Amino acid sequence: MFFLEETIRNKGAVYPGNVLKVDSFLNHQIDVAALDRLGEEFARRFTGKSITKILTIEASGIAVACSAARCIGVPVVYAKKTHSKNIGMDVYSSRVFSYTHDKEYDIIVSAQFIGRDDRVLILDDFLALGNAVKGLIGICGQAGASIAGIGICIEKAFQHGGDELRKMGYDVQSLAVIEKMSDDGNIVFRTDEQG
Amino acid sequence: MFFLEETIRNKGAVYPGNVLKVDSFLNHQIDVAALDRLGEEFARRFTGKSITKILTIEASGIAVACSAARCIGVPVVYAKKTHSKNIGMDVYSSRVFSYTHDKEYDIIVSAQFIGRDDRVLILDDFLALGNAVKGLIGICGQAGASIAGIGICIEKAFQHGGDELRKMGYDVQSLAVIEKMSDDGNIVFRTDEQG
Repeated sequence: MFFLEETIRNKGAVYPGNVLKVDSFLNHQIDVAALDRLGEEFARRFTGKSITKILTIEASGIAVACSAARCIGVPVVYAKKTHSKNIGMDVYSSRVFSYTHDKEYDIIVSAQFIGRDDRVLILDDFLALGNAVKGLIGICGQAGASIAGIGICIEKAFQHGGDELRKMGYDVQSLAVIEKMSDDGNIVFRTDEQG
Repeated sequence: MFFLEETIRNKGAVYPGNVLKVDSFLNHQIDVAALDRLGEEFARRFTGKSITKILTIEASGIAVACSAARCIGVPVVYAKKTHSKNIGMDVYSSRVFSYTHDKEYDIIVSAQFIGRDDRVLILDDFLALGNAVKGLIGICGQAGASIAGIGICIEKAFQHGGDELRKMGYDVQSLAVIEKMSDDGNIVFRTDEQG
């Protein structure tokens, strides 16, 4: 069992509505030592994939993307969620529906930071329906960049986004895959079922 | 001259309205090697300050906060900008006016992640009017935590937030301090004036 699963069991909290809070170590408070183990594991799983850039989405993907980028030796680009006056007009954009916040938002990436020569590793902290990742795939498509793989810290398999992306042919590597979660706090990982 | 000033001159871009874009290496695309030099410099400047936690604000403060936290050996906590259903009700909050986006927003931190025993290093990428930092100071006040110092990557001194905070008694360490910026791209750093 990868340490992340044990950390989720020990420090995570399940709330009604399929909400898993891991904000004591991953996406509100950050345990940098644990973060770096996740970054190293992504680097290991995508060895030899000729990655030129890591693409993530603000805010909670940034920390793990930087850890993986340090190991792989490439820059991070993070998609921004709103159109600030600090970003130029020459951008790629996608519309994303957020299950967590129950609303749509736009994500944008400056065109100068992703191009047709890039082989992109998409990273994020969570994958549920896969909407954020699909938005990032759309941005890579607009840029003409190829996608080397998709790395996810925690996949909620019961919301099927990960398996949908795998069926589309993407190499999705999730460091913890949750098959079932119940409101009493019980969590079943894919590795539990595989014995 | 610290490398950051040279990087700002070489890779930054000045836009009308006192906008300095450093999104090719700091806050949209991230050069992780440069980021780590910033983190190391913060660790050096705040050596011996008994820091227990680094506090920043999403999204653009997260990367540099994680780099510094790795060197100092403490966790990062980042304040969130909206009230998501994934965060509990027991939070500290401040209202912040964003000069960049010309609007007010709330920042929140879960009460469980900052307490009266904490000595907090506040870190952020930019300091202009100082509104975001004042919001984070407010959160530390609500938590009863003490503030060990304030670390900033790029301070726009002509907007006076940094000197205001210094007058309030805070140890503000900015790695690049811009005294003047003109629309033709000319940048004068505090170290230029000190000869």
